[in-house]
Amino acid sequence: MSPMDSPTDKHIDTNKMDERSLSASHDQQPYAYKVAIPPKQNLFKEFQYTVKETFFADDPLRSFKDQSTSKKLILGIEFIFPILNWGRSYNLKKFRGDIIAGLTIASLCIPQDIGYSKLAHLAPQYGLYSSFVPPLIYAFMGSSRDIAIGPVAVVSLLLGTLLSNEIDPVTHAEEYRRLAFTATFFAGITQATLGIFRLGFLIDFLSHAAIVGFMGGAAITIALQQLKGFLGIKTKMFTTKTDIISVLKAVFSSAKHGWNWETILIGASFLSFLLVAKFIGKKNKKFFWVPAIAPLISVVLSTFFVFITRADKQGVEIVNHIEKGINPSSVHEIYFSGDYLGKGFKIGVMAGMIALTEAIAIGRTFASMKDYQLDGNREMVALGTMNVVGSMTSCYVATGSFSRSAVNYMAGCQTAVSNIVMSIVVFLTLQFITPLFKYTPNAILAAIIISAVISLVDYQAAILIWKTDKFDFVACMGAFFGVVFVSVEIGLLIAVSISFAKILLQVTRPRTAILGKIPGTSVYRNIQQYTEASKVPGVMIVRVDSAIYFSNSNYVKERILRWLTDEEAVKGDYHTRIQFLIVEMSPVTDIDTSGIHAFEELHRSLEKRGVQLVLANPGSAVTDKLYTSNFANIIGQDNIFLTVAAAVANCAPKLDVNP
Amino acid sequence: MSPMDSPTDKHIDTNKMDERSLSASHDQQPYAYKVAIPPKQNLFKEFQYTVKETFFADDPLRSFKDQSTSKKLILGIEFIFPILNWGRSYNLKKFRGDIIAGLTIASLCIPQDIGYSKLAHLAPQYGLYSSFVPPLIYAFMGSSRDIAIGPVAVVSLLLGTLLSNEIDPVTHAEEYRRLAFTATFFAGITQATLGIFRLGFLIDFLSHAAIVGFMGGAAITIALQQLKGFLGIKTKMFTTKTDIISVLKAVFSSAKHGWNWETILIGASFLSFLLVAKFIGKKNKKFFWVPAIAPLISVVLSTFFVFITRADKQGVEIVNHIEKGINPSSVHEIYFSGDYLGKGFKIGVMAGMIALTEAIAIGRTFASMKDYQLDGNREMVALGTMNVVGSMTSCYVATGSFSRSAVNYMAGCQTAVSNIVMSIVVFLTLQFITPLFKYTPNAILAAIIISAVISLVDYQAAILIWKTDKFDFVACMGAFFGVVFVSVEIGLLIAVSISFAKILLQVTRPRTAILGKIPGTSVYRNIQQYTEASKVPGVMIVRVDSAIYFSNSNYVKERILRWLTDEEAVKGDYHTRIQFLIVEMSPVTDIDTSGIHAFEELHRSLEKRGVQLVLANPGSAVTDKLYTSNFANIIGQDNIFLTVAAAVANCAPKLDVNP
Repeated sequence: MSPMDSPTDKHIDTNKMDERSLSASHDQQPYAYKVAIPPKQNLFKEFQYTVKETFFADDPLRSFKDQSTSKKLILGIEFIFPILNWGRSYNLKKFRGDIIAGLTIASLCIPQDIGYSKLAHLAPQYGLYSSFVPPLIYAFMGSSRDIAIGPVAVVSLLLGTLLSNEIDPVTHAEEYRRLAFTATFFAGITQATLGIFRLGFLIDFLSHAAIVGFMGGAAITIALQQLKGFLGIKTKMFTTKTDIISVLKAVFSSAKHGWNWETILIGASFLSFLLVAKFIGKKNKKFFWVPAIAPLISVVLSTFFVFITRADKQGVEIVNHIEKGINPSSVHEIYFSGDYLGKGFKIGVMAGMIALTEAIAIGRTFASMKDYQLDGNREMVALGTMNVVGSMTSCYVATGSFSRSAVNYMAGCQTAVSNIVMSIVVFLTLQFITPLFKYTPNAILAAIIISAVISLVDYQAAILIWKTDKFDFVACMGAFFGVVFVSVEIGLLIAVSISFAKILLQVTRPRTAILGKIPGTSVYRNIQQYTEASKVPGVMIVRVDSAIYFSNSNYVKERILRWLTDEEAVKGDYHTRIQFLIVEMSPVTDIDTSGIHAFEELHRSLEKRGVQLVLANPGSAVTDKLYTSNFANIIGQDNIFLTVAAAVANCAPKLDVNP
Repeated sequence: MSPMDSPTDKHIDTNKMDERSLSASHDQQPYAYKVAIPPKQNLFKEFQYTVKETFFADDPLRSFKDQSTSKKLILGIEFIFPILNWGRSYNLKKFRGDIIAGLTIASLCIPQDIGYSKLAHLAPQYGLYSSFVPPLIYAFMGSSRDIAIGPVAVVSLLLGTLLSNEIDPVTHAEEYRRLAFTATFFAGITQATLGIFRLGFLIDFLSHAAIVGFMGGAAITIALQQLKGFLGIKTKMFTTKTDIISVLKAVFSSAKHGWNWETILIGASFLSFLLVAKFIGKKNKKFFWVPAIAPLISVVLSTFFVFITRADKQGVEIVNHIEKGINPSSVHEIYFSGDYLGKGFKIGVMAGMIALTEAIAIGRTFASMKDYQLDGNREMVALGTMNVVGSMTSCYVATGSFSRSAVNYMAGCQTAVSNIVMSIVVFLTLQFITPLFKYTPNAILAAIIISAVISLVDYQAAILIWKTDKFDFVACMGAFFGVVFVSVEIGLLIAVSISFAKILLQVTRPRTAILGKIPGTSVYRNIQQYTEASKVPGVMIVRVDSAIYFSNSNYVKERILRWLTDEEAVKGDYHTRIQFLIVEMSPVTDIDTSGIHAFEELHRSLEKRGVQLVLANPGSAVTDKLYTSNFANIIGQDNIFLTVAAAVANCAPKLDVNP
């Protein structure tokens, strides 16, 4: 081509390009608009905003605004004891709902409590104690209307495992119990502290997927532990480990001499009964009460049966003894000094966090089903107080139970009064009925626990997780197998580690995408999602999908340069050399000094290659920082646009088509 | 208003609204386009992509593609030893640049090395040893052209502090030295391991701001340590602590009897000389060599002066003895068993990471200035190998030095050959000249170190950080004060913790914004940034500025509901009840199962309030998950739009203006 031709040629080419890239931008004139520099923020206000969003995201003090001091005081007391608030509008209709629900969950909790305390290696009455005091405290301080408080399977297992790592529960029963109260005390302190300092968001770091896996694994482990009671294996023939391999080995090695056929017969028949009851309840929501009272019926029937036949003489193990009377004080049993203080603290923190996770998950689920707000931090204070008081009245860690809360909800509970009703029933049981449990066979308790934890294996959730997010599934399975094959602590550790790894991966390796123009619009979208979107010749448009921070700034810079290299390598259709690199900043919600540095380096590298850096739609935080760091002037303020379309419209005429 | 009027009324109202909200959307018909469901990804491919972006983000194997096996082998060897690649095009012109640069950094490094080894509590020759072997290894394996390898101030200080916490360097000199080699060995192993497993991104977790603060604090600490040599204070009158308070106390309590005026005189005059030289070098880049050779001149002059005047008899402390000859083997001195193995390992990991951070930061800075790519992971392998070999040849941890690399760059180095030149000069020094250092006064070394570390206090960077990002500034100051007032380890711990806290805060509390329409366009932007943007009556548009993961899903849900509550409370101008909530999903780059759950709960809450949830522009990952989890069907596929404008255009006609 002669030099004479080129101006005309160029003219034609540019026109053609205008047609392609500008058609849609014409009519919306976004270039009339420049990116607004947000009003300069007062440092104090900015700080205040961050603190508020971090710790007071739920705006708990909303109702305190513009009130007189005395009114504020009343509101404050009501804030700590919500019962004073909802109690005023309490009526007989609500009470009817609560009393039915309370009686139902009481009938469910009594046999469960006795079984769960065995999981925690404690005498059976401690389970009942923990269903008496804590629910009462919660009813006054908690704000969930549906949660049912008491000992739960997973926390009992966790506590039992951690405590027996320190002290042998058989040979040193007293020290073991004292350490349990110490752990309970610190579990409560942990929970209340998190709530008071509004650090409740910390429990959000355990992902849903990790919880599903952990719960499923714990349920399997718990069920396996029940094989001992279910098959009538003697304690000395069983294992103290909880992993599936040790347990199955112990079970099979004891098959010849250790199993007790009478026990298995009783256990198996009642387990079938419980499972059928569960099935009925699931098929027809109207019969929710069938699985709820089935355990108590099993206990009554089997106890009566053993009493009549004196099957305990045939080797059927029975409960034998439950202490009569309500909770004795245990204030002086808590270790406040010595070696066990530290151990109790550590165990308490772990058990407290897990208990919290379970209770908050339950609380939130039911709150969203009835559409009321739940203040997570206030809940934590309530749960913490309840466990601190519990630790002083011979209770071990109590929390919200999945199964009983669901029954409570279906039985039509209206307020936390259902917990009070349950508590009273437990009180009466402790006072008058406990001696009757003497002949209750352990196999029945095992069957009740198996049928209760079986629904914690939420395979449907696991399938959904698999479908939705593969990384989540890895976390889920990691936690599951960790618990089943190693131990609860290891499973928990895996769950937490994978959850954190995911967060770190997210912030280190954000996605980037090449954008193209969707035909007939002025909209630019990811060309991998919208295959019909077309690239603009001579211009590369990259979108960065994350705030640019120190953890990813270097990656983002290098990734953009790699896109450019790739793009230049496959020139193909695009004969025009790439001269403009537009970075779509909409998803870049923030940038820090490292990010600005990375952009400076990017700008320098691009300059050397003869490519102009152009930014589209930086948000307010980013715009602010682009200006204060002077980077806006380095690339030129006229290279920052409100939209990608505006940026393209501006770049196209400047393109040199024959470089 | 009578019921009769309402239809007309409504009609008019809707029209009016159409005018306001649709004007700009007309002409771009984005509703012709539905959000594309991305092509179903193969699980294996998806996994492969994630692994690639995480570990091979820089695509290091690009050149290996489509090559024969023998070619691949050659490329592989060149990959490990880049010198074989660039060596082929090496020429005399490049050598001229390298030899000048090499001689300059050699003259700078010899006095610095002697001083730095004192910081590490090692005999002076170990500093020189570390400037002989490691640079040679690096020259063959490294890919940075500008970095100058050798002992550096901060790592020497860190090593000295950590090692002397374990062993007293005076009374147990041999064990101390052996532990130093052990730590160096493991520092090298750590670095090489990170590189081989391509985990180099881990060092990105130390933010720029934290590094600035840490370096500044370390510089101050180092300068304070030099007061001992500078004032001629006897070792037994000084403190072993490094915090500013202990050091100043020791300095002033020794003022009466401990200071040596002759020492101070020599030290102060040469420090002035060095600072003037530095000033000249800074004023005029042409005189970069003035500050570079000033230290060596100071050493020569002061040594000569002391030798003539025998000032050492007046209490001026001198170096006294440097071992002659090159590095002896130290393979058998490394602890591969026993108690010190673990301690050496721990110290090595820390020192190795810090050394890595410094070297990579330097490498990247100069690479971007000359616009060449640096493979961080390959660099780590080179640095690691060099330290492993170093630990076996009586060297302690070496890395890239800020000050010497800058001099190297300004002196016109072309390749790593300048390191070889420097290494040869150090070799000659060790073989022939070391005895001459006998009369070098310690005060001169102190002056050289002070003038070297002073530029690590980068107050301009700190000011820029303050202006750009307040949170970064807190990290910077935390690290700074931690180092200055407590110790290097604590400073480092603070720096890492704050960096992590920032990441966690970012993922737990993402920003959200209310969008309004920018007049005259169909663009919707944050109304706080664009104050002229107007809200659309009856419709609330929220943008969520982050991927929605388990760590923030609950917050996002509750924040959106709070926006709605706030919006409903301040109805004011907008008499139309809010009936549509549009969530702008552009910045939501990903969502996990917890996020989907949160959206389900949000949808349920909104339904109860009579508000329809509408999504605008979900990205490919999000769209995919919305469909696989069935949430797209729950809210209705026709409630997902390509743009906010399209969503508004679709909602407006459906609005019930008299609810």
